Formats: sequence, structure tokens, C-alpha cells
Amino acid sequence: MAEPKFEIKPAYNHRGLIPAIVQNHQSKKVLMMAWMNEQAFKMTLETEEAHFWSRSRNELWHKGETSGNTMKIMDIWIDCDQDTVLLLVDPAGPACHTGRESCFYRRMEIKNAG
Amino acid sequence: MAEPKFEIKPAYNHRGLIPAIVQNHQSKKVLMMAWMNEQAFKMTLETEEAHFWSRSRNELWHKGETSGNTMKIMDIWIDCDQDTVLLLVDPAGPACHTGRESCFYRRMEIKNAG
Repeated sequence: MAEPKFEIKPAYNHRGLIPAIVQNHQSKKVLMMAWMNEQAFKMTLETEEAHFWSRSRNELWHKGETSGNTMKIMDIWIDCDQDTVLLLVDPAGPACHTGRESCFYRRMEIKNAG
Repeated sequence: MAEPKFEIKPAYNHRGLIPAIVQNHQSKKVLMMAWMNEQAFKMTLETEEAHFWSRSRNELWHKGETSGNTMKIMDIWIDCDQDTVLLLVDPAGPACHTGRESCFYRRMEIKNAG
């Protein structure tokens, strides 16, 4: 359940960016983390497809524009401090540039891990 | 399935920090996002309880040290660029300082949201 009313005021950092966690809305798998600037956030809301700010290319990045692996926005949540965004998406393909479903494919060895 | 062998080399940013996404290992709910420095990462691995770097207090932050809401580490994944960490945890209580289970309690209104 969402809280009834609140004002959305993303707390962009000193570089004008906010981290966005991307989660598969069905499997709940965390797929990737990327950054949004105000424009990317607006484009994401307007087009209902994930847009980010590419820090390496220094440009607006419509996820899947070249690969076809777009991400349809199903839900967006923002956290208590409004300094992180959570996107629930329906991905058209793998999230990772390596072709893997998720960018989190390296598992660390710890005792509790099954 | 994890990839067989790889070298863990977290890519800390210019402030020596790496973002850590925290997910409930059972419900798969995303609970919070916080930052780790090298010390916090080491302490997390050593103690198998989530440690972060508090950017507001500028100190090592053992999550739940005062509230009792510690987070037992069940699994850790690191992404393709090794610049984001994903912690799967068994939380002893709410993740959010507001007392909510997750910090992501504010849902934005978008068309696809059910």
C-alpha cells in the first residue's frame, strides 16, 4: 500500500543525479542500478520506459534504444529521503550489457549463502 | 547460479564509497539503499551483519546497533562494473528509520501501476 499523499521532490546529488534501482516486477529480481538526472526521470515518467543518465557517455540514455532491451515501467517508488528511486519494470530482454538477465551475476562467497 | 571464479574489486567512487542495495532474501522486497566504504564492506563480510558508511554522521554505521534492527547477511552479489553491491538479508526488524518495513514506501502515480 502506498501512502496517500506526498510531494515528490527527488534529492538529486551535487552532480544532479539520483540512483535508480531496477527490479523485475514479476520475479522481483534486482536487475541493475543506474543514475537519473531530472531529464531522465521526466522522460521515464512520460514514456513509461526506463531512461537514465549515462555517466560514461555523458548523455541521456534510453535503455534498450540500441539493443531493443527496453524496460517498461510498471511502478515507481521513492525512498524516505527521496534520494533513491526504485523502478519496477517489465524488461524486453536482458538488463546487462553482457547479455545476462541481471547485472548482479557475481556472487560472493559467504558462510550463510546456500 | 554464480559464475565460477572472479576477482572481487569493488569500484569505490571518488569519495571511497560504493552503493549497496538491500533486499529481503525471502520476500525479495527492496528495503533500502545505503553506502559502504572499504571498512564497512569488510565489517559486513566479517560479521555477516550489514555495515554502511553514514554520510550524514561521517562514521561507520552498524545497521541496527541502536535500534536492534540488524540485518543478517544471507548473500552478496556484485554487479558487472563492480560499482554496486546487492545484499540479501534477513532483517531483525524494519529497515526504515520511520519504522516502515522498507524505505521505499512512497509510490508514484503512473498509468501502469496496479
